Amino acid sequence: MTETRYDVLGVGNAIVDVLAQVDEAFITTHELAKDAMLLIDEERATSLYAAFPPSEEISGGSAANSLAGIASFGARGAYIGKVANDQLGEVFAHDLRAAGVAYDTAPLEGGPATARCLIAVPPDARRAMNTFLGASALMDEADIDQDLVRASTVTFLEGYLFDREEAKRAFVRAAEYARAADRRVALTLSDIFCVERHRDSFRQLVKNHVDVLFANEAELKSLYETEDFDAALASVRAETRVAAVTRSEKGAVIVSGDDEARVPATPVEKVVDTTGAGDLFAAGFLTGYARGAGLETCGRLGVIAAGEIISHMGARPQVSLADLAAKAGVAIPAA
Amino acid sequence: MTETRYDVLGVGNAIVDVLAQVDEAFITTHELAKDAMLLIDEERATSLYAAFPPSEEISGGSAANSLAGIASFGARGAYIGKVANDQLGEVFAHDLRAAGVAYDTAPLEGGPATARCLIAVPPDARRAMNTFLGASALMDEADIDQDLVRASTVTFLEGYLFDREEAKRAFVRAAEYARAADRRVALTLSDIFCVERHRDSFRQLVKNHVDVLFANEAELKSLYETEDFDAALASVRAETRVAAVTRSEKGAVIVSGDDEARVPATPVEKVVDTTGAGDLFAAGFLTGYARGAGLETCGRLGVIAAGEIISHMGARPQVSLADLAAKAGVAIPAA
Repeated sequence: MTETRYDVLGVGNAIVDVLAQVDEAFITTHELAKDAMLLIDEERATSLYAAFPPSEEISGGSAANSLAGIASFGARGAYIGKVANDQLGEVFAHDLRAAGVAYDTAPLEGGPATARCLIAVPPDARRAMNTFLGASALMDEADIDQDLVRASTVTFLEGYLFDREEAKRAFVRAAEYARAADRRVALTLSDIFCVERHRDSFRQLVKNHVDVLFANEAELKSLYETEDFDAALASVRAETRVAAVTRSEKGAVIVSGDDEARVPATPVEKVVDTTGAGDLFAAGFLTGYARGAGLETCGRLGVIAAGEIISHMGARPQVSLADLAAKAGVAIPAA
Repeated sequence: MTETRYDVLGVGNAIVDVLAQVDEAFITTHELAKDAMLLIDEERATSLYAAFPPSEEISGGSAANSLAGIASFGARGAYIGKVANDQLGEVFAHDLRAAGVAYDTAPLEGGPATARCLIAVPPDARRAMNTFLGASALMDEADIDQDLVRASTVTFLEGYLFDREEAKRAFVRAAEYARAADRRVALTLSDIFCVERHRDSFRQLVKNHVDVLFANEAELKSLYETEDFDAALASVRAETRVAAVTRSEKGAVIVSGDDEARVPATPVEKVVDTTGAGDLFAAGFLTGYARGAGLETCGRLGVIAAGEIISHMGARPQVSLADLAAKAGVAIPAA
């Protein structure tokens, strides 16, 4: 492979999170789904927001969260995703660039507003996400910069992109560019409902185009339609180069051909908000992977980042992940 | 006095805070002022925001923060302040209403954007605020609903309103309506630079129209142009019905005619961000004052609220202040 300018290029839905702490009754009353992401239309977004407690706005988006984490580890990241030309779009772009991620996708003019995700965080920290996709779903193939894909060691795609046709075409285009340039393709399954919505497409994709697959236990089981975790693991082992499966407080299992690594979760004093746990695991893992680290090092970087993110509200790191890795004695290979 | 619908009506600049943790070098490099608020124009707002680290957006505005606190104590609050018809304006309105505050000021159409305050929080927690006033300064006399002033026991005005002519006229109008209806007028001096900008006007106002004055030690000394705190206290005692003076970790001194109460600060494990300390002291104090509580009870409610706000990022309470008051054994009189 020729040299790259970026370790990881993320492609995803560009979203600003609207976060609020709620009680259990709020989850029930508004029929929200914990540990999951529901797509909502503008009308539902308006009525749910009206019912929302006082909130804070923090830039989000699954792959964008991962890229912010990758930059916090000191790795080189870029991002493609669509905001509108509005205040929340400006906030999203600012926060990503300020985190050290290259981001130049042209904002959407004259269409829907920047995407928002209304996130209700109940006392048990298992967040319920409700996304109005807005401008983010209107990213299209023209937004995928082929030179940028060529210049990136890994192109990282989020499964959520499959939820709208334009974004899905952009997703496929990015994967094609990466393969043509002999770069690696990583995919996160994103969410169990997302897997259920797109199982067949994901199966094809994993088998034919994905080098590194991220999933949690429930998503992996759903992908292979089995209740048997070991059976699902055997299936994915046969179909991808690397699969990294997260299991909440049980840590992560990583399989690659005949190799396997199991990494315990980082102990966390108090789990405040699980938003972004998977995104940040991927951030750590991909930081190591893009630099050629072994499976266990990749996994350890993943759990370090996930442990940081669940200890506070929001899905962007609040301290330097490079410092946390250094403190934990995990070395990140040079670019 | 006839019965009122609201304990406190706040009138102030409607602002969304953009908060980020920074290092000391950031404060120096960008010539920011700790413990103070600087007014910045749109150009400076744009360049400073570009230099800002990843941030979070939380509704702010001095009097609006106070009203959110008043509602959190379970008291009845209303607010007048101007946002634009844009996303951050929607966020501001949502958060205030969701906090339980009545808020119906018509958004500004076709003018500048909703006001933003770029707040840099250094490791010592002494925030540097930088405000682009935008739409907030274009509140005018027509926005002051006379019936609302009449319906409120106390009308609470922030000194920051004096920074622009339109808002200043609205301020004066609100004070006139309150006096005509035999209601109480409270004023916060807001900021030492604000006092320096408007010392003569504030002196006139305090002497002729203000029942309850809020100031910190530096602001009070500046108002009376003396380095002697006791002399400043003697001056304000002669000129207002009640003056509540905050002194950071030394707590608060409240004077009213011959009466005086001194209240120690609430012990706080770690001071994270001093944004809103004065606003929330006023929230507690006014909650008590509007209900006819004694000076010491008012002061104790003030330090309870201030202690909560400085223990986290942002200037809106994160837990129920009514619960904190109950735990501290401070009873809030019924409406």
